[in-house]
Amino acid sequence: MADSSLRDAFIDELRDTYDSEKQIIKALPKMVKAATNKQLKAALSSHLEETKGQVKRLETVFGLLDKKVKGKHCEGTAGILKEGKSVMNEDFDDATMDACLIASAQRVEHYEIAAYGTLIAWAKCLGETKIVKLLEETLKQEDSADKKLTGLAEDGINQSSMEAGAVA
Amino acid sequence: MADSSLRDAFIDELRDTYDSEKQIIKALPKMVKAATNKQLKAALSSHLEETKGQVKRLETVFGLLDKKVKGKHCEGTAGILKEGKSVMNEDFDDATMDACLIASAQRVEHYEIAAYGTLIAWAKCLGETKIVKLLEETLKQEDSADKKLTGLAEDGINQSSMEAGAVA
Repeated sequence: MADSSLRDAFIDELRDTYDSEKQIIKALPKMVKAATNKQLKAALSSHLEETKGQVKRLETVFGLLDKKVKGKHCEGTAGILKEGKSVMNEDFDDATMDACLIASAQRVEHYEIAAYGTLIAWAKCLGETKIVKLLEETLKQEDSADKKLTGLAEDGINQSSMEAGAVA
Repeated sequence: MADSSLRDAFIDELRDTYDSEKQIIKALPKMVKAATNKQLKAALSSHLEETKGQVKRLETVFGLLDKKVKGKHCEGTAGILKEGKSVMNEDFDDATMDACLIASAQRVEHYEIAAYGTLIAWAKCLGETKIVKLLEETLKQEDSADKKLTGLAEDGINQSSMEAGAVA
């Protein structure tokens, strides 16, 4: 059977990523709720909508491969989100909590950036041009989401957190 | 107390990252053993040595802050490494296993890139210039390690994996 091994690994990776996105969809509303800064709330909400689109894109990929849409528990994302949840239980002031939410969300984004980077490289090897294009759209969104969060942190959230500490 | 909240979050994040690096030091030798491609084995071994240096650098940071060197269990890294371990138990051909090891290692790298990105941004806010420089050295190494792995995948490992599949 031609290139069965890398193809098998690719399907595994797709299922892992599909589950990862589903976990993120469950977690993001809690992060939106925990955020105070309006721009941060808006950025997380908009990423939630994007993530729903990314799930649909993965479903299209499964269809193109004639494979059943199925997730496989993603331990990596589960660990990162568990950590994020425990941060939300800390007793930080609002601005520091916002800075911590950005830190958690960026860990998730970077995990996704690595995952989609692998998926795209493997899809290229497998000659799956249509799939490469779909996955590249998602990777672009993940990159933008990460940069937007860095911008929010640098444009004021980290500084507000410092100032909140200074008056505490 | 001035900027206590962001400073507290910074110490938490440092302890999380210190534990993360320690977990990686335990995991990397197994990945080196599981790899077949000589350049990949060498890249993972060299990153193991780098990681030991990164641990020492974090110990210096704790010293500069007059804080006890102490880790805090990093769920994120634990999840990613648990996932990597389960991939090592899959029955892939050698070249596909190498491609999967690169995928796992890049997930770890990206998690670290996000973590150090946050630490650096916060250290800048806290005016900890010496610490910023130390952490930037580590971030540079993590970026290079990630790019080196992408290079190895693109320069042949993914393709070998395809060819191994084709003759299977």
